[in-house]
Amino acid sequence: MAMKMVQIGAAGHYAYALPTAKKYGLALTGLCLTHPDDKMDRAKRELAEYGFCPRVYEDFREMLLSEMPDIAVVNSVMAENSEIAAFALEHGISVFCEKPVATEKASLLHLEETYHAAKRRYAGVRNLCFCGMFGIDYLPHFETAYRFVKAGGLGDIRLANAQKSYKMGRREPYYSNRALYGGTIPWVAIHAIEWVQRIGGLSPVAVTAYGSTACNAGNGTMEASTLCLFSCEGGRMASVSADVMRPGTAPTHDDDRLRLVGSDGVLEVRGGHVYVIDREGDRELPLVRPEHELFEEFLLEVMGEGTCRVRAEDAFSATRTALAARLSQDTEQTVWIR
Amino acid sequence: MAMKMVQIGAAGHYAYALPTAKKYGLALTGLCLTHPDDKMDRAKRELAEYGFCPRVYEDFREMLLSEMPDIAVVNSVMAENSEIAAFALEHGISVFCEKPVATEKASLLHLEETYHAAKRRYAGVRNLCFCGMFGIDYLPHFETAYRFVKAGGLGDIRLANAQKSYKMGRREPYYSNRALYGGTIPWVAIHAIEWVQRIGGLSPVAVTAYGSTACNAGNGTMEASTLCLFSCEGGRMASVSADVMRPGTAPTHDDDRLRLVGSDGVLEVRGGHVYVIDREGDRELPLVRPEHELFEEFLLEVMGEGTCRVRAEDAFSATRTALAARLSQDTEQTVWIR
Repeated sequence: MAMKMVQIGAAGHYAYALPTAKKYGLALTGLCLTHPDDKMDRAKRELAEYGFCPRVYEDFREMLLSEMPDIAVVNSVMAENSEIAAFALEHGISVFCEKPVATEKASLLHLEETYHAAKRRYAGVRNLCFCGMFGIDYLPHFETAYRFVKAGGLGDIRLANAQKSYKMGRREPYYSNRALYGGTIPWVAIHAIEWVQRIGGLSPVAVTAYGSTACNAGNGTMEASTLCLFSCEGGRMASVSADVMRPGTAPTHDDDRLRLVGSDGVLEVRGGHVYVIDREGDRELPLVRPEHELFEEFLLEVMGEGTCRVRAEDAFSATRTALAARLSQDTEQTVWIR
Repeated sequence: MAMKMVQIGAAGHYAYALPTAKKYGLALTGLCLTHPDDKMDRAKRELAEYGFCPRVYEDFREMLLSEMPDIAVVNSVMAENSEIAAFALEHGISVFCEKPVATEKASLLHLEETYHAAKRRYAGVRNLCFCGMFGIDYLPHFETAYRFVKAGGLGDIRLANAQKSYKMGRREPYYSNRALYGGTIPWVAIHAIEWVQRIGGLSPVAVTAYGSTACNAGNGTMEASTLCLFSCEGGRMASVSADVMRPGTAPTHDDDRLRLVGSDGVLEVRGGHVYVIDREGDRELPLVRPEHELFEEFLLEVMGEGTCRVRAEDAFSATRTALAARLSQDTEQTVWIR
């Protein structure tokens, strides 16, 4: 019997899931939007392009209990995701969740506890999984960097500089309200934080961060520029710069960068390329593609046929670090990350 | 009559001064080394290549009082420079000084006070000048960035990311002793700090900084990696990453970078090039060369024929900011910059 999937919200990267869901013959049986800013027409149209005509529900709880799917794709406005995800997990439904997976520390802790408890409860029944939508990690340049680092190519990584820079574009109204989208550090900087942690292998222990709403094109409380400094375990250190000030004329929407400085070399991801300087000299690495993209790895893990490299813990950890950074921004104090 | 110049110390960038001193027919009449790590033979040989055969003194005070030159080139081990420079200024001698121009806050304050008092005292007599050796600013890429920014090309600059990365190379013994060279933030990061301040126009008000001696190739207390976060006036922000971990196989000694994110565009200095994205699109700026290099501008200012763009205040300010960052590194506290 085909695995069943439902979708809650349409504010995020649900499109990550669609081609793979189709490829694996999943049944997308339910759709529920929980926030007025979510666009039902667009969601229905995009799902239809993959042959999915889900029943539309008014209430996500009713949908989950009625459909009892294997997987819930959760991407409402960010502030709602943790509650939705926790409810699904409690009922034994694996979750593919937009980041940040929570926008408040308490809701993150609740989500983590719920995940671990549900994971134990369903242990003999199914492989209950949780995955954050860090699909950028599966782009060839980040995959190439990941493999080089994990093969030990840089030795002891002491220093990381990471950057996310987006065009502002036209933003839905909820981006003007931090209570709904979480703020620019949990929304944008979180990717760079995740690279520092998962690719660079650094473990932040304290953070000092700044953010400013200047030049935010009228988007309410949205910070257009943010900057985080992380003290990491073992005297290592990292900076994360994130902004929404990339000019509209730029050739790409985003300018993603990661620089890792290790005892045996320096690696840089820039412009979709990976550059390394080590004892073999200064060169560009040939790009490798991951065998599976993010949702496919997640799906295979749900099916018990593999392990998703972006683990539940990676999503929790990146969110925890981002929320600590936001707290530092708000309190103008260095914040310990626990 | 030819202007007279003397040199004290040979640990720094005195070579900046030599071709221009020759071109303008200056008489280099005295040389005095104040620290055992300074290499007299090399200094004499390099000076001789420009036709200078100065009298060698044992004591810099005796030399300055005896020669009474127009200009003193001061570049002993960094910790000695402020005292030497202050003595020269007190006696009406203009100073071309290695950076950091002081390695302790008290000596920086003394040097600044001495400079301002001497400037007033000699006001009717001569144009007493002080210049820090920020010669990198005169490389075409930084000159190009400077002109673009000063012409208003970026609008309101909200965010800066700057980087200095050096090869370790073979370092003289005094680099193993922070009391002598000042530490990696005042020694290396200071350049990037100066770009943020002078080119970017940002005014840091607080700093949080980290440094680590790991991977320093046996150089004692030298930090091989450092990272500074600056809160700047008006909610602006800047990061400065500085390390001495650039692999020996790299094509250049240094990897200097400056990224400025403004309301009207993003500028980046990287690899000796300047890239801009603004409403005219994504492009590389044609490089412009300054009409005069640093020492020549300084010399012209001494002669009353111009103004050096790297002002005394720029050197004091970059040093003040760097010393505040070092204090943050040492105390593990955010430090206000005053």
